[in-house]
Amino acid sequence: MPVPCHDHSMPRVSQDHLEARRRQILDGSRACFARFGYEGATVRRLEEATGLSRGAIFHHFKDKESLFLALAEDEAARMADVVAEQGLVQVMRKLLEKPDDPGSAMPGADWLGTRLEVSRRLRTDADFRLRWAERSEQLTAATRARLQWQRAAGNLREDVDIDVLTSYLELFLEGLVSHLAMGLPADDLGPVLDVVEESVRRHRAQ
Amino acid sequence: MPVPCHDHSMPRVSQDHLEARRRQILDGSRACFARFGYEGATVRRLEEATGLSRGAIFHHFKDKESLFLALAEDEAARMADVVAEQGLVQVMRKLLEKPDDPGSAMPGADWLGTRLEVSRRLRTDADFRLRWAERSEQLTAATRARLQWQRAAGNLREDVDIDVLTSYLELFLEGLVSHLAMGLPADDLGPVLDVVEESVRRHRAQ
Repeated sequence: MPVPCHDHSMPRVSQDHLEARRRQILDGSRACFARFGYEGATVRRLEEATGLSRGAIFHHFKDKESLFLALAEDEAARMADVVAEQGLVQVMRKLLEKPDDPGSAMPGADWLGTRLEVSRRLRTDADFRLRWAERSEQLTAATRARLQWQRAAGNLREDVDIDVLTSYLELFLEGLVSHLAMGLPADDLGPVLDVVEESVRRHRAQ
Repeated sequence: MPVPCHDHSMPRVSQDHLEARRRQILDGSRACFARFGYEGATVRRLEEATGLSRGAIFHHFKDKESLFLALAEDEAARMADVVAEQGLVQVMRKLLEKPDDPGSAMPGADWLGTRLEVSRRLRTDADFRLRWAERSEQLTAATRARLQWQRAAGNLREDVDIDVLTSYLELFLEGLVSHLAMGLPADDLGPVLDVVEESVRRHRAQ
């Protein structure tokens, strides 16, 4: 069945309208990439998920790759906001608690799906790795800033560099994401996150 | 170009010979799966990597899926041996130190490749998940046994369950594997593993 041809031209619209449309595309395509993966998220499926024509979608994003990068960047920014306010361990706790509550403040399952696609493509696609490198620093920066704030408040252990603790938390998050992605049981991981949280805090005598 | 047809019949051979041939296939196919991934490890490539005909290969393993499962199980057993002797953190250290030294006692890069293929297929293939579930317990069992031994020796913290510490170490390993698989820098992760190791040990007053 031939796909109908859409008009690529767009009327001149306000900045607000452009931003709202861009948001509509990101929100719609997020679940689509999470469900079908990058390759499986066909243009047809992206049209269905966003309720917009390919012409409208690719007016805002040069191509599927650019859309996915914008989405991943958007998710990283949202996650960085949560980290800045509540810390990376709290992000992990929320991943466990509400993996797919659409009303949650956390991106939840969709974020997990996007993050997994990023991880997978970083492993398999050298071009993507280059394009993503410059955009992936947000979560690290937010985590580091939060730890510096905690150290200044006297809540952080003093004997380990902030950069080491940042890498420690990020590696643990990566493991948790991979674990959840494999569909492995996550009911009992709360006490595990307690160990993680405690290990970056100021030590007290036992 | 037609692929030559190989004779599937095999002469009656000794158990030692069967085992040696099985080992040859596992050793040869390991690098092939690691390099090309499960789907990319075609029968032709497996023939090249093992130096054996498809007839010989599939005399020992019913199909490619069975070969891959046997390989993953074999790697898990080798890794469990290292865990039993040296602990899971040491396994992680060796992953950092010698990612691709062929003479190393550690499976190294090949093991990483196999483990990644397992992780990926667990995420994307429900049938594989079922078949793998019963075989994936070795590393967990070895880790738990090692921790029990350490607790008996008085080296382990007393305030957290062995199962929680086991999950903690396994999640961290998963994160490390994923990190390495993405080709991200690993030069500075030694001090991070120090934090991991210390956090399962008996706490001492600071």
